[in-house]
Order: sequence, then C-alpha cells, then structure tokens
Amino acid sequence: MSIDPSANLSTDDADNTRRQFLRLAGGGMAAIATGAWAAATPEIEANKVTLPPLNAPTEQQEKPQDPSAPPARRVGFAIVGLGHLSLNQILPAFGKSKYAYPAALVSGDPVKARKIAAQYGIDAASIYNYQNYDELAHNPRVDVVYVVLPNSMHREFTVRAAKAGKHVLCEKPMATSVADCEAMIAACAQAGRKLMIGYRSQYEPHSRALVKLLKQNKLGELREFISANSQNEGDPTQWRLKKAMAGGGPLPDVGIYSINQIRFLTGLEPEEVFATTYAPSGDPRFTEVEASIQYTLRFPGGLSAACSSAYNSHKSQFFRVQGSTGWAEMSPAFAYNGLKLRTNQVMDGNEVTQEPAIAEKDQFALELDHMAQCVLQNLTPHTPGEEGLRDQQIIEALYESARTHRPVKVPPVKGPLRGPEPAESA
Amino acid sequence: MSIDPSANLSTDDADNTRRQFLRLAGGGMAAIATGAWAAATPEIEANKVTLPPLNAPTEQQEKPQDPSAPPARRVGFAIVGLGHLSLNQILPAFGKSKYAYPAALVSGDPVKARKIAAQYGIDAASIYNYQNYDELAHNPRVDVVYVVLPNSMHREFTVRAAKAGKHVLCEKPMATSVADCEAMIAACAQAGRKLMIGYRSQYEPHSRALVKLLKQNKLGELREFISANSQNEGDPTQWRLKKAMAGGGPLPDVGIYSINQIRFLTGLEPEEVFATTYAPSGDPRFTEVEASIQYTLRFPGGLSAACSSAYNSHKSQFFRVQGSTGWAEMSPAFAYNGLKLRTNQVMDGNEVTQEPAIAEKDQFALELDHMAQCVLQNLTPHTPGEEGLRDQQIIEALYESARTHRPVKVPPVKGPLRGPEPAESA
Amino acid sequence: MSIDPSANLSTDDADNTRRQFLRLAGGGMAAIATGAWAAATPEIEANKVTLPPLNAPTEQQEKPQDPSAPPARRVGFAIVGLGHLSLNQILPAFGKSKYAYPAALVSGDPVKARKIAAQYGIDAASIYNYQNYDELAHNPRVDVVYVVLPNSMHREFTVRAAKAGKHVLCEKPMATSVADCEAMIAACAQAGRKLMIGYRSQYEPHSRALVKLLKQNKLGELREFISANSQNEGDPTQWRLKKAMAGGGPLPDVGIYSINQIRFLTGLEPEEVFATTYAPSGDPRFTEVEASIQYTLRFPGGLSAACSSAYNSHKSQFFRVQGSTGWAEMSPAFAYNGLKLRTNQVMDGNEVTQEPAIAEKDQFALELDHMAQCVLQNLTPHTPGEEGLRDQQIIEALYESARTHRPVKVPPVKGPLRGPEPAESA
Amino acid sequence: MSIDPSANLSTDDADNTRRQFLRLAGGGMAAIATGAWAAATPEIEANKVTLPPLNAPTEQQEKPQDPSAPPARRVGFAIVGLGHLSLNQILPAFGKSKYAYPAALVSGDPVKARKIAAQYGIDAASIYNYQNYDELAHNPRVDVVYVVLPNSMHREFTVRAAKAGKHVLCEKPMATSVADCEAMIAACAQAGRKLMIGYRSQYEPHSRALVKLLKQNKLGELREFISANSQNEGDPTQWRLKKAMAGGGPLPDVGIYSINQIRFLTGLEPEEVFATTYAPSGDPRFTEVEASIQYTLRFPGGLSAACSSAYNSHKSQFFRVQGSTGWAEMSPAFAYNGLKLRTNQVMDGNEVTQEPAIAEKDQFALELDHMAQCVLQNLTPHTPGEEGLRDQQIIEALYESARTHRPVKVPPVKGPLRGPEPAESA
Repeated sequence: MSIDPSANLSTDDADNTRRQFLRLAGGGMAAIATGAWAAATPEIEANKVTLPPLNAPTEQQEKPQDPSAPPARRVGFAIVGLGHLSLNQILPAFGKSKYAYPAALVSGDPVKARKIAAQYGIDAASIYNYQNYDELAHNPRVDVVYVVLPNSMHREFTVRAAKAGKHVLCEKPMATSVADCEAMIAACAQAGRKLMIGYRSQYEPHSRALVKLLKQNKLGELREFISANSQNEGDPTQWRLKKAMAGGGPLPDVGIYSINQIRFLTGLEPEEVFATTYAPSGDPRFTEVEASIQYTLRFPGGLSAACSSAYNSHKSQFFRVQGSTGWAEMSPAFAYNGLKLRTNQVMDGNEVTQEPAIAEKDQFALELDHMAQCVLQNLTPHTPGEEGLRDQQIIEALYESARTHRPVKVPPVKGPLRGPEPAESA
Repeated sequence: MSIDPSANLSTDDADNTRRQFLRLAGGGMAAIATGAWAAATPEIEANKVTLPPLNAPTEQQEKPQDPSAPPARRVGFAIVGLGHLSLNQILPAFGKSKYAYPAALVSGDPVKARKIAAQYGIDAASIYNYQNYDELAHNPRVDVVYVVLPNSMHREFTVRAAKAGKHVLCEKPMATSVADCEAMIAACAQAGRKLMIGYRSQYEPHSRALVKLLKQNKLGELREFISANSQNEGDPTQWRLKKAMAGGGPLPDVGIYSINQIRFLTGLEPEEVFATTYAPSGDPRFTEVEASIQYTLRFPGGLSAACSSAYNSHKSQFFRVQGSTGWAEMSPAFAYNGLKLRTNQVMDGNEVTQEPAIAEKDQFALELDHMAQCVLQNLTPHTPGEEGLRDQQIIEALYESARTHRPVKVPPVKGPLRGPEPAESA
Repeated sequence: MSIDPSANLSTDDADNTRRQFLRLAGGGMAAIATGAWAAATPEIEANKVTLPPLNAPTEQQEKPQDPSAPPARRVGFAIVGLGHLSLNQILPAFGKSKYAYPAALVSGDPVKARKIAAQYGIDAASIYNYQNYDELAHNPRVDVVYVVLPNSMHREFTVRAAKAGKHVLCEKPMATSVADCEAMIAACAQAGRKLMIGYRSQYEPHSRALVKLLKQNKLGELREFISANSQNEGDPTQWRLKKAMAGGGPLPDVGIYSINQIRFLTGLEPEEVFATTYAPSGDPRFTEVEASIQYTLRFPGGLSAACSSAYNSHKSQFFRVQGSTGWAEMSPAFAYNGLKLRTNQVMDGNEVTQEPAIAEKDQFALELDHMAQCVLQNLTPHTPGEEGLRDQQIIEALYESARTHRPVKVPPVKGPLRGPEPAESA
Repeated sequence: MSIDPSANLSTDDADNTRRQFLRLAGGGMAAIATGAWAAATPEIEANKVTLPPLNAPTEQQEKPQDPSAPPARRVGFAIVGLGHLSLNQILPAFGKSKYAYPAALVSGDPVKARKIAAQYGIDAASIYNYQNYDELAHNPRVDVVYVVLPNSMHREFTVRAAKAGKHVLCEKPMATSVADCEAMIAACAQAGRKLMIGYRSQYEPHSRALVKLLKQNKLGELREFISANSQNEGDPTQWRLKKAMAGGGPLPDVGIYSINQIRFLTGLEPEEVFATTYAPSGDPRFTEVEASIQYTLRFPGGLSAACSSAYNSHKSQFFRVQGSTGWAEMSPAFAYNGLKLRTNQVMDGNEVTQEPAIAEKDQFALELDHMAQCVLQNLTPHTPGEEGLRDQQIIEALYESARTHRPVKVPPVKGPLRGPEPAESA
C-alpha cells in the first residue's frame, strides 16, 4: 500500500493514523487491506467536482473529469527495468495517472536509477537492483511491481514479486514460453496477488470505441481482419534480436498486437493458424530470430485473419476489420499516440467513411490506473495472466506452423481470459 | 480495321479511298494493315495542339492533351457480353477514349443489344449473338473483340475471335484453368493476332505513379504487402457463384487484383503460396465457391504478402506495400474511381504521409486506348495472355494449398510476362 | 437541331426522314422544333436497359445509367474559342455527354481549328471565324453556341448567337458589366433562345449532395461561410490580367466561385458587402487588376461570409459552411476533379467527420447535358442569365466597396434567378 | 519559490537546507532567488539520461526526454479561478509538466477548492479566496500566479499578484481594454515580476513546426490567411456573454486565436482592419455581445486575412495560410488536442499534400514549463504582456470598424512584442 508522499505536510492527524494502518496492511495483511481500500474509493469520489455545461446541447459536451486520488490515496508502483519504455513512456505517464504514483525503481545501473529517482521524487532508499529486489517485500509504499524487463526475465521477476507479496503488472509479451506463463499465473494465485499484462490497446479510447461499435453490430457479422505491425530495427546487439531473451522476433514483440487486437475486439479465439517466416542470410540482425512473418488465423464462425509483421520494414501500424455491412480500421493502430479510427458503411445509399474525434489519452496512464483500481477495489484485471498466456499459446502454434509448414491447431481455452472492462475514464 | 462512322459526311475523297484500303486490309491482310496503321499514328500526332502555359512555374503545369484520333482513324471494338461491366463501365468509356470506338455488339439478348446499339450509334447490322459470332470475321469495322463474358467462356470466345482474324482484349481473370489460358495464347499466336488481358490497374495513373516511386527506390527494399479486396455478393443465382462458370469464388474475381498488383508493382514472382478458405454451410451463395480466402505469398529476396478476399464482406479495397524506408498504400485501391495513393517515410526527422493529387482517368478508356495503340503501332500489349496465365498458375497453386493444407510451389516463369509500358496518356 | 453524324449508316428510313425535318426545324422553326424534341425524349428513355442488382442489399447499389441519346438525337454545340478550357476540358467532355455532340468550331486560328475538328470528327465545313460567325445561322447541326471567349467578348458573341437563332451557353463570369449581362438576357429573350451560364459547380455531384444535406437541415441554421479560391498566374500578357478584357482580377475569375457557391447552396442573397484589394507595385502581372481581394458578405438572417481570392497565391480551393449544429467543407472545392466533401457534427456524443464516397463526374459533360436537355425538353436552364447577372451585381458592389472603402449595398433581386434543378444524372 | 512537497521523506540534509534557503528567497529576495534558480538548472540537466537508439537510421528517432525537475526544484503556481479551464485542462496539465507544480488555489468557493486541493495534494493552508488573495505574498511555495478568471478581472488580479511579489501567467485575452493591458504591464514592470499571456498555440508543436516551415520559405511569399474559429454557446447567463466581463463576444474569446496565429506565424503586424458583426434579436445569448464577426486584416507586403468567428456556430477551428508556392492549414487548429497540420505544394510536377506525424503534447504543460523556465533562468516570456496588448489593440480597432463601418488603422508597434522562443521540449 502507498504512503502519502507529502504526509507530513498534512495537518489532518486522524487521516494520518488511518494511513499508518493501511501502510501496515499493505505489507502483509492483504485481505484487510483490500477491504480498507475498497472503502477508500468513495472517499476519492467525494472529491468530484462537476461544473455546469457551457455549450449548446447539440455540441459535444465536456466530460466531467474523474477526480484524481490525493497523493496519500494513490497506489505505489515499483518500476523494474529502466529502458526506453520505462523512461520515455511509463514514468512520464504517472503524471497523467489519477490513482498511481512511482514509489520505487529497480535497475542494474545505480547511477541511472538515482538520476531518474531524483526527477520523479522517488526516495533514494526505494532504489533496488536485481539482487536485492526481493527486499521490496519490506517497502510498504510499493503495492504493485511493474515488470519492464527483457521478455525472458518476466517469469523470474513476476514470481519473486508475488513471493514478496506484491501485485504484478507485467509488460507484453507475458513471457517466452507457455510454461513460463503458467508458472507466473500459479505464483500470483498462490500468493493471492493480482497479475495484469500490459495490453495497452485494450485500455485506450479508440479501441474501446471500436469494441462498442462491434457490440452494437455496426459492421454486421465479422468476416476478415488484416493487419501489419512492423518496424525497422537498428542495433543488432539489442536483446530484442536474441532468441533466448526475446522468445522470437517481430511476432512476440509487435505481431502480438495484431493477434491480441482481433481477439479482444471480437471475443473470439483462433482455432487454427498458419505461418511462414523469413530471415535473410547476411543481415547481422537476424541470426537468431525471423525478420518477417506472415500468418493466417482461422476463427469459429467464418472470421479469418491475414497478418504480417516485420523487423526490417519501415514502421507500419495498421489493421482493418471487415464485417458484412461495414469495415473499421485504425491507421495508425498500436502506436503510443496519433491513433485514428475510421469506419465505412453505406448510409442513405452512399458509402461513407466516418472519423470520430476521439481525444487521445496516455495509454500507460490508463493501464496504471486500471491496475490501481483493481488493487483499490479488489477486482480482477481486465487483462490478467490468462490473457497473456493465450497469446503465448497462439505464438507457439504459429512458430510450430512455420517450422512444420503445416496449419496448427491452437489448444482450446479452459476458462475466462479477461476480467471486467475498465471503467470509462475521463 | 475500322471504318469512319461518319465517312459519308467527309468531302475528302482521297482519304476515303485510303480508308477503303484499310478496311480491306483489316479483313485479312494483317501484315500490310499493321504497316499502314503504324504510318497512321504520325497523322494523329500531326493534329496535336499545344497552348502556352498560363500559370506560374511553381504551379502544377497543365499537361497538353494527346490528340484524339479522328473517328475515321479509330480502332473498332466488338463488345461481347452486355452485363454490368459492359453497360456501366466499358461502353461509356469509349467516350473518353482517343483511339477506339464501339463498332459491334455481341449478346444473347437482341432486344437489349438493339437498345444499346441505338445509344452508341452502332449499326444494327453489327449486332451479333453467340451463334453467329464467327461472322465478325466479315465485319471490317471490327479490329478487336473485347470478351466480357463469364470466365469459363473466355477461352471459347477468344479462340473463335482469333480464328475470325480479330485481336482480343479479354477481361480478367483470363480463364478458369491454366489449360484454357495456354489454349488462348496459342490460338492468338497461331492467328497472328494480339491478346491483351484487361488488368486495368496496370494502366491507371495512381498505380503507375507508385511503380515509378518503387523504381526510384523511394521505399527502400521491399518487405511486405498486405491487401484486402472484398465485396458482399447478393443474388445467389449469379454466375460468379457457380464454380464451373467462375472458376472459383472471390479469389479469381477480386483476390486476383491483390495478386496482380504486387506482381506488377515489383516485377517479382511468388515462389511459394499458402491459402485457407472458408464457406459457411447454409448460405445459398456459397454452395460451390469459397466465401472467403486468406493467403500468403513468398517472393524471392524476402518480400512476402498476406492477403484476404471475401464475397461476404462489406466492400473493402486496400493494399499497403512496405519497404525498408517507407510504405505506400492505396485506399481505395482496385476501384473504378476515387483511388487514393498515400506514402509514408521519414523526412527531416519526422514521419510524413504524402498524398499526391493525381487526376483520375477512366481506367477502361486507358485500356481501350492501349489496345488500340498496340493495333495501330503493332506492339505487344503491356498485359498479354502470359500475364493472365501467370495469375491463373498462382490461383491454382492457392486452391491446391487450400485443398491440401500445405504450402505449394508456383511453377517457374518461362518467358517475358509483359509488353512495353503504355505511353503516358494525357 | 442536330443531324445524325452517321446518318447514312442507318437503314431506318422513316427515322431518317424525321431527322431531315428536325434539321430544318432547327434552322428557323423554333416553336415546332421544341415540341418535336420534347417528344423525342421518351424515345431516348425507351433505350433504357436495367440489369438486376448483384450485391447484397446493405451495399451501395449501382445506379442504372441513363441511356445515352443516339448520335442522331443529340444536340449539336458550336464551341466558340479554342483556348485551354475548350481544348482540355470542354471538347473532351463531349465523350462523357449523353445528349450533346460537338457540331462546329469558332476560332481565329484556322490551322488550330482544323486540327481540332479532325480529332473530334467535326466537318471542316463547320469551322467558323469571328467574322463569319453569324453564318452559324445556316448550320442546322448547331443548336447551341458555347461561348468560351475572354470575358469582355461574351456580350457580343452571345447577342450575335441569339440573333442567329441559336441557344447560348456562356462561360462564367457572364460578362464584364451589369449592362452587358442585361443586354445578353434581353437579346436571348427577344430571340426566344435559351441562355445558360456555365456554373459547373451547380451541376456536380458533391455540391448537389451538399445542397441536399442543407435542405434536410443537417447543419442546423447557417451562420458562416469561409472560402479561398486562388491561383498563381504566370504569363503577364494573358488576357486574364487585362482589365478591359477580364473585367477585373481574381474576383470575377475565381472569387466568383466562392460567391456563387454560398448563394446557390443556401438560396440566400447578400445584402451588403465589403472588400479590400491589393496590387503590388513592380509586379508586371498586376498593372491593371488586383493581385488579391478579401471580402465579406452579409446575408439576411445572420449568415455571413469571409472570403479571399488571389492571383499570386499557390492554388488553393476551399470553402467551409458552418451551421448551428454542424459544418461542411469541400477541399478541394471548385476544381475540375478530385473534389472532396466532408461534414462534421456530433453523433452519439462525439464529433464525427464524415466523408461520403461520391463518384466524380465530368462537370462539363453535366453542363452540356443539362443545356441539351433544356433544349430537348424546352426547359429554363438551372443557371440562366439572371444567375450570372446577379453575381456581376455583387462583383460590382465589391469593387465599389474596395474603391470607396465603405460597405456597399447590393441591389435587391427582381425575379427568379434559377430554373429547375437538373435531373439526377447517372 | 517552491518547497519540496515531499521534503521530509528525503534523507539528504544538505539538500534540505538549501531548499530552506530557496524557500525564503522566494518570499522576497527576488534578485538572489533568480540567481539561485538559474544555478539550479544545470542541476536538473545533470539528471538527464540518454539511451542508445534502437531503430534503423532511416526511421524516426526517439527524442531523448528532457529530465523532469525533482519536486523540490519545481516552480510553484497558484491557480486563480476554478472553472472549466482550470479543472479540466490546467490542473491536470501539471502532471505532464517537468518544472512546475500546483502550490496554491484561489477560489470563491471554499468547498470546491478543498476538494480540488485534496486531489492534487495541495495543502489546505494554501487555499485563498478573492479577498485574502494578497496574502499569497507570504506563501513562499508560490512563485507564479496563473490568472484564469473572467477577462475583466485579469487586470485587478494581475496587479495585485505583482504587488504581492509574484510572477504572473494570465489567460488570453489579456484584458478587456488597452488601458487595462497597459496597466498590467506597468504593474509587473514596477514590481520586477514577469508577465506572460497564455497563448498556448505559440508553444504547441504543430504551430511551431509551421513557423519553422515558414522561416525556411517553404510556402514562398505569404499572400493570404483565412480562418474560422467558432463555437456554439449554451447557457445565456455565463460571463462570456456579458460585455462588461468578457470585453466582447467571440472576437476576444476565440477570434483572438486567428489574429494571434497569423501574427506569430509571420512576425507581421496588421496595418488596417475592417469588421462587420451580427447579433440576432430575440436570442437571449446575444443581448450584449455579437453572435458573429467577419473581418479582414491588411498586413504590409501584400499579406491579407479574411476571418470569421461566431458563438452560434457548431465548433469549427480552422486556418489556412497561403503563399506564392504552397499553402499550409491546420484543421483542427486552436483545439486542446487532435491538431493536424497539412501542407500543399508542387513536388516533381504534382501537387502533393503532406501531413507530418507530430506527436501531440499537452499545451498547458508546455505553457507552464515555459513560464517555469523563465523564472528559473530569468528569461523574458515568449508571449509577454506586450503580445497580449497588441491583440487587444487589434480587437479594439476591429470593434471600432464594426461600429463606424469603415476600415480602421491599427496603431504602430512601439517595441518588441515577444521574448525568445521556448526551448524545444521533449
């Protein structure tokens, strides 16, 4: 549980005492803590301020902001790994978060960690390395550990976090094998801790608007999905190009967005897949992993997907989903910003392309806030470990197909893959 | 050879005599005729009028129009089959053509044929049916037969046209089997007549601008191609849904655009393909042909394609080609009008999407004019029978793959597939 | 009235005789001819062919084409002036026309005229110059004279055409003074001939779709109109830059599109206008006319316009009309091709921009066909002389404002400005 | 100067002592404080972390983030007025700021203020009302007062802030009269405090990219500017519709964006202006202020503007600037998010529209950070009071023109209007 980063500035002693309790609860009294935090949520809501509307009723109405949780009521996160994603996306996203704050850092580079800690007002005592990481157990400010490490390290650092009594938010792909995914789920379950996989597209407003459209049957019955998610890698020594660390090439890193997108948009699961890969000889980037993969997915009921992902293409982030009466596309899709959603259908006898003006939100802030709310309200994350495991099963089926040159069946789903949808966030 | 549709209005007797000669030549003296027509082209060029530019040099300059050939110098076409394509696209396109005119109609419905003939000023004596079709041999106004029939009839009506001494422009797909394609090529070769397949995308200015960009290496080395070309069929009794007449479902009808596009854009040929098809039970449209097909194509050098085509999706016409330093897309692609080309690359440090304002041209008029110029100047069509045969080989490989659930090799190419590029047309 | 350009190819003698009659009627028996042609229209309709729909009912349905009139039933046009517009737009547009054909040319350059006549199958005997222009009276093939001359010549050549018994289609701007416009209207009225001004935007499908939207009140009450229509002129010696010939600078040439657009979109007339002009010293293009003009128009009921037009700007063709509940824009607007219409309004709580896929049509062909139908069916043109006169009144008010630096009232409208809307053309 | 909101969590005593000093300095020792803070900036820079690039050199490179200032090094802002802008834009923007934090609130509604304070971790002791506002003088955490009040109150609360020894960031429009603007500038100058006007467009990356393009002469010589900035007001009782409080209708509120945009894009000042306004009778919203205004601006050298703004139109935010060789537009422009920049010019003989993918940034965070850096480094704000005064002079000239129905000269500029450009912010 989180401590108030400015607790001593407060004059409200009663409140302070309550925070002390919660701090202890966070250390080891999960059941009690959960109840306490669930009770805390109405307290946040009590801070809600609503202003009268100013514009005409035919105009788009300003959505009243959800209130930010006071610093003392926020959920503390430890960020594990200080690479590009942590530094350029995740840590800045805390500024847009309403319920989360950065409480600790874990890094192999203490100089870098101290610089970053200073920027974000993180106590130097809350900097850890990969050896003393388990001591997070004793840091009551940390409620959640956000694992932002090379893929092959996800299992170890998730399991250790669960053992330390922390909830885990783990970047996608969840791990580099189905076995690892299963071990991560088991460890968190055993520890009674939550496990969420960082599928940010499932939280951002363009994709959520599309989910809503599909539920309203605006495109008719779904038939086809095409997608390309590709980028052009540089430095051949980076871990993304090492099979043992990455688990594969573009497929688990960027192709996974295409796979996950059609799955969560439709709620359908592929039954059979086929893939073909390419790795040029002589390109030092692709001695271990594929440069490019093309694949098809067969879903029940006649929906099929044709996708491509590459690590040697100019950045391209696209999907289109086609139904019997309309299509929708995002271009760019999957990006951190600049997302655009377009739909096409016949209206009044003409094909019309529509582009709604959907205000961009920080996708990482949305993730952080969802995880924080799951902690505060004791909810199952919308994208729990089961969701990450499922994509890993599909990825392994695709690699098997590429290896055997045959279509491969994906194992059936055994239980629910997702928790409740996140609340509409303002 | 064509006669002047308003010859008797002319007072130029010498010219009239020359036309008489050509008319005869068209009937059976191919070698002589060809020479004569080649000589005729400068005569057309002599009618060229160029006006001084009016706008500032930094503005887009008006391109001087190619001169239209006088009615008496135009190449006469017989249109075989009066369905949607002929009535709504091809016949109106003659109005935009510079070198072609509609000289005859072939239809099984004489009432309809007479109505259409009246609209286009076609002599009622130049209406034929499928039985007396071979009498076209005796109609000197007809230089080219344009076969716009159900796919399975392409072979017969191409072979009969060649035997009647006519050049042939045949709609895509060329036929319903490789054997048929080969027979068509052989028949035209034996008759010394030209054979062109109606791949209109290869003639329209957006695709040609993209070919130019690719030749200039603007996208770097090519890596990926994704495409969807789909539509939602209605009437279950139409021939497009009958396997014997259509040769397949969406693949030969609309999927062929995706296949042909990446082939002609790059000049590369796929080596290996994989496909999976779907046909729902209980949908009366899909008792014989697939509703949907997803497929991948492997090209030499690391270019791969992932495509989808369906007959039960809302209309969707899209492709994107991705290189190492940029991508280009058309959306819509393949359509009769409204085509848009966009490219994306990094310029001055930023990703920039560019959309050139390319003036739309009637794609059928461009086809007609290319065929007419091939006749007038004795050139090999840019998209001869060999080009159509190649797509048919790929289509058969894809269907074999769908049947056997294995990747299938495409037979190697044996000779040149395309003639010289059409001249830039204004 | 028009003669059949391929009459002798017909075997239908009765029909031929009727044409002879009409030919004579065209020469001088206007009243009879009109009745005859009105009767001819059902004959055209009898050629209509409708095919069964092929695609699903949720798809955009192919609109059945209006039948083309047979060559013998078409209205003949004389094109007066063979500059850029005639050569690059108007003459090629006859190929897309359904009811018109080019029957004569009028030019001061006989060599050019002969070349063009040859291209379009126009009899050399139907070439005129500006001296023997009045002999058109004796050419029964010519029903309509299309005046495509420098603006200051519009009056003379319209009046002479009317005196020669011909209907007149005159390019915009109608003339260079209100007095000239009034004289043109009077001359045609006196001769019992129709007068149409070539406002092509009023005939093209994007603008017409917008008119329909406005009539359905889709944007609410109209409030604002902004527009820029500009281009960068080159050659300083061209007539467009000579005040006596052009009547002004960018205002009557391109600014007129903005003025006319908001007028016909709304059916409202400006009451008061203000303008400011600019002409740089030292630029040889602008010794007589303004380089740039900015102006505002006040309409009754609270609609106002702010517009700009220049002859020294990069080509820019834009307008947006804003109502209380939505806006619509065309960008480009006014262009020969590539027009795009977008609308914006709140739908389901979100601002949504919609772009309908409206198939482009040749704007000049639509004009030609409207004029031809007015002749065939004895209708008042949708954009008669009164419409052109009205714009000229506004232009003169704007120039007066620029000269006096005061707002200027526009004289009230005295009668109807437009004829019935053209039929939906396929 | 700001205090560390989590100071007591730090173990760094030396640092703590230094903060104590700064806290005192902020209270009244401006000269010393400024030096101290200027020295502090390198300390921030020392926290910069740069990571090696991962993608290919032909790809867009990730820009290394500027380091965030530690909480203890941030500049404290008092937010005056808790309306829509403060609650929905400005307060959330502190989360994206790198150098600023919310230190105090000023509101007439203590309940609302306490709720907001709780959300943002603002000490309840730092809540003020409009009466005890001057006590801000004794709050060392507050460096800058951000005036977000009705326009007519800007003068008083700016002057009082300056007297309290605080720097001022004031929302646009700066005030409701030239006299008020001048008084505000004088008061801040006298107090030795900085004054910045909140012209967020001058700080956001799309507009700054366009400034850069114009400086590179990418559009040639500038000729025209058209713009519409409009919205549809609701509640007729809101202060925006009261002349005494707002200073006018749409002109000072939204029209000011158009005026300011062309001024800062070009660095040119209008010499003469003309305006016409409209206010419908019977609409309760427009009993005091105009509903709509159309206006033209003449700049030296041949650049002219035609603009429109309304309070009774659907939201529309647009401008296009046209030069001799190209145009650029933003649509939407002026909005909080979703901005798009497009340019058009001839490339390789074709008109090409380009749209760069410019990552959106929080415009208020950019403003806050610029003001904070001006304080930290003792710089003149990029948009000081002089910039706001200039727009007010133009607004008054426009209203005079609307009243007198004559063009009105704008007084000449007397000194520099802007400070140095803000640093490129990551």
